[in-house]
Amino acid sequence: MARPMLLNAFEMNTVSQSSHGLWAHPRSRAADYNRLSYWTDLARLLERGLFDGLFLADVLGVYDVYGGSAEAALRSGAQIPINDPMLLVPAMAQVTQHLGFGITANVSYEAPFLLARRFSTLDHLTEGRVAWNVVTGFLDSAARAMGRPTQREHDTRYDMADDFLQVVYKLWEHSWADDAVLRDKGARVFSRPDRVREVAHDGPYFQMRGLHLSEPSPQRTPVLFQAGSSTRGLRFAGEHAECVFINGRSPAGAAEKVARLRAAARQAGRRDEDLRVFAGMSVIVGRSQAEAEDKLADYRSYIDPEGELAHFAASTGIDYARHGLDEPIGFVQNNANNSALESITTRSREGAWTKRDLIARMSVGGRGPLILGDPQQVADGLAQWMAEADIDGFNLTRLVAHESLEDFVTLVVPVLQERGLYKRGYGEGPLRRKLFGEARLPDRHPARRAG
Amino acid sequence: MARPMLLNAFEMNTVSQSSHGLWAHPRSRAADYNRLSYWTDLARLLERGLFDGLFLADVLGVYDVYGGSAEAALRSGAQIPINDPMLLVPAMAQVTQHLGFGITANVSYEAPFLLARRFSTLDHLTEGRVAWNVVTGFLDSAARAMGRPTQREHDTRYDMADDFLQVVYKLWEHSWADDAVLRDKGARVFSRPDRVREVAHDGPYFQMRGLHLSEPSPQRTPVLFQAGSSTRGLRFAGEHAECVFINGRSPAGAAEKVARLRAAARQAGRRDEDLRVFAGMSVIVGRSQAEAEDKLADYRSYIDPEGELAHFAASTGIDYARHGLDEPIGFVQNNANNSALESITTRSREGAWTKRDLIARMSVGGRGPLILGDPQQVADGLAQWMAEADIDGFNLTRLVAHESLEDFVTLVVPVLQERGLYKRGYGEGPLRRKLFGEARLPDRHPARRAG
Repeated sequence: MARPMLLNAFEMNTVSQSSHGLWAHPRSRAADYNRLSYWTDLARLLERGLFDGLFLADVLGVYDVYGGSAEAALRSGAQIPINDPMLLVPAMAQVTQHLGFGITANVSYEAPFLLARRFSTLDHLTEGRVAWNVVTGFLDSAARAMGRPTQREHDTRYDMADDFLQVVYKLWEHSWADDAVLRDKGARVFSRPDRVREVAHDGPYFQMRGLHLSEPSPQRTPVLFQAGSSTRGLRFAGEHAECVFINGRSPAGAAEKVARLRAAARQAGRRDEDLRVFAGMSVIVGRSQAEAEDKLADYRSYIDPEGELAHFAASTGIDYARHGLDEPIGFVQNNANNSALESITTRSREGAWTKRDLIARMSVGGRGPLILGDPQQVADGLAQWMAEADIDGFNLTRLVAHESLEDFVTLVVPVLQERGLYKRGYGEGPLRRKLFGEARLPDRHPARRAG
Repeated sequence: MARPMLLNAFEMNTVSQSSHGLWAHPRSRAADYNRLSYWTDLARLLERGLFDGLFLADVLGVYDVYGGSAEAALRSGAQIPINDPMLLVPAMAQVTQHLGFGITANVSYEAPFLLARRFSTLDHLTEGRVAWNVVTGFLDSAARAMGRPTQREHDTRYDMADDFLQVVYKLWEHSWADDAVLRDKGARVFSRPDRVREVAHDGPYFQMRGLHLSEPSPQRTPVLFQAGSSTRGLRFAGEHAECVFINGRSPAGAAEKVARLRAAARQAGRRDEDLRVFAGMSVIVGRSQAEAEDKLADYRSYIDPEGELAHFAASTGIDYARHGLDEPIGFVQNNANNSALESITTRSREGAWTKRDLIARMSVGGRGPLILGDPQQVADGLAQWMAEADIDGFNLTRLVAHESLEDFVTLVVPVLQERGLYKRGYGEGPLRRKLFGEARLPDRHPARRAG
């Protein structure tokens, strides 16, 4: 198996993550997002399917651009209510052994000293199965809820993220030596003080001095995910990210992004193979193509245009409620790295488009790519993406929870395995070892040099 | 049963919480504090013993006053390393149905908007079993790690806590109406926008404007714990606390504190019965008194004076390393509401004392009260405390994990039940309903009026 396909489920601690409206499907469990069993059942299912990870997106704030209020978002449940993602992980770790957990946390609002301890705690409790999706936020509503009039400028947010990472790198990698903890009951010595040190940081955004409160965890620094696609975001990913989540409408479009990402990594003194790239993907599979098409038609009948518009409006900063159906809409910025926006931003670069275009293109899986068919057809589609886009795997979006993933595990995974595209069992050890062969970051990663 | 005895286990996500040195006992599991099974086994044990809750203390920072460094603390494991307490709860909730979880979180360093969401998330996942122990911190090392030169003044920290609570009260109690969430799949409406509102706060320490990101959880505001014993802390407890954790050397000493607490609650327009008071207590039980005494002698042989001194030094701000054994030491302030300090502070009010006194009094359970004996003797001791101190129950300290609690559950609980002092099964519903009869705070609590 030259390059095994990696798979994450792409989820969020909310009722409606994307494909808004699907929560109301009679078989969807999404309305139970706030119950432990939703998540423990999901985790067990994913481990049965040998998924590498569960990727938990998050957003702080509410989508209040459309119509100038949160009305449409609230009615449709478009990422509101949204609970904390990190607290789902210990319960899912308790019912699994290998599944990794990618957790989104926002460097614009968290405190590095406390966030570092939380990730270390999770890395201990999960025995090294934790990844961190580093985000900087994109909503003014979050800034206001945190006591600021507006969010910081886009590039400033990334400068702040750089500074934040320096602090947590120091805490994770440089406060406790590998041999600091003895746990020696006979000698009655827990740690060796000469092998633990305060770290200090005096950066433009963060200043601190202190010991890391946690002893070294299996991975120390969690596996680092990132999803920025701007010029500044790309540089950040090249420097720091181990796994990158991209959105692309087509394999060719994705391939361009992947090439830029790998170039950015090389630019930062890292290697092509230091990056694993996951493409966002929706899959609908049936035992036959006809069954899959029926499923799509059924799912599509639940799509809620108001929820979709509320989400798009916040992601682009444009209030579509003020546009007539056929009025041209100007250039659209994709602030949120939202797969649903890909085709719109592409189109807006090419020329005028209207709200009617937007609504016409609303479908299952947003405007991100959708692969549909029988198990062989789906395997063909995924294999084509792998080959043409130079990606390492997929983040599979939530459609009808958990039916769509159950279908995938039952129908598609065995075909991928038969073709030699997918593993037949988990590797041993922490998540980073499963993904990259080593539990610790390589010396060429900036975390190792942050001390 | 006039006033049933309430029981919490008093724990911390660390190797050595108190009675430093006991982690090295051959039967202690404390060195596995960073593994899920330590906590899930504990939770199952406590639920078997019908405990009301597991109280998770926490401290940010490290004990670096003794000898001017963290050496003694690190060697002995005295509350370092210390992991995040909140992340233990989902895994324990997953293996229990009724046990409550009291989680310490520090208002000096957390962000109210984010902390509110974390507690709401937990209250959902646990179906209403969460309590929050509100603390303000007492270590300069924590302040430095958070980018401040020193911590704020004692009373300022409580003023800030008041302001913090106003923000989270608004989010928890006043952003979403009881009937805001419909979950109506047929109508495809998740929430009613007209029943959800932004809250705003413009206080001396915190300013914000926003919707709460979480829909109403079973308790909304988690059950509020507090443990302050200063004049300012007492006023804070009277205004806000539902459960208070006190330390007292004797029932008479505890009774004085309880009287002051209940007076503070009345002063704040609340009622005596709005407070449940838990006294810190160490228990060593054997099938006979002799067996219990042998156990104490065995445990005591593990006590680590250096760890105890490191802990005391940080709690009092006095560097005992600079004192000769028989040199008089001046007045001691109990900054940390540390039960181990009770006798010392009492003594220092009465006159001179020395490091020799301190070391001589080091024993199992710190200098807090210890009840030792056969099951009947232990039940007698607990009953006497209940009657004389006007308390509602106990926070049982960690001695040898989990042997000491296992002994308690197996030997003491049945005797308490036979005497009609302790419940024979859990009540239904959320933690607040089990403790106070209602899942929601009463109208007279300030959280209900914060809107």
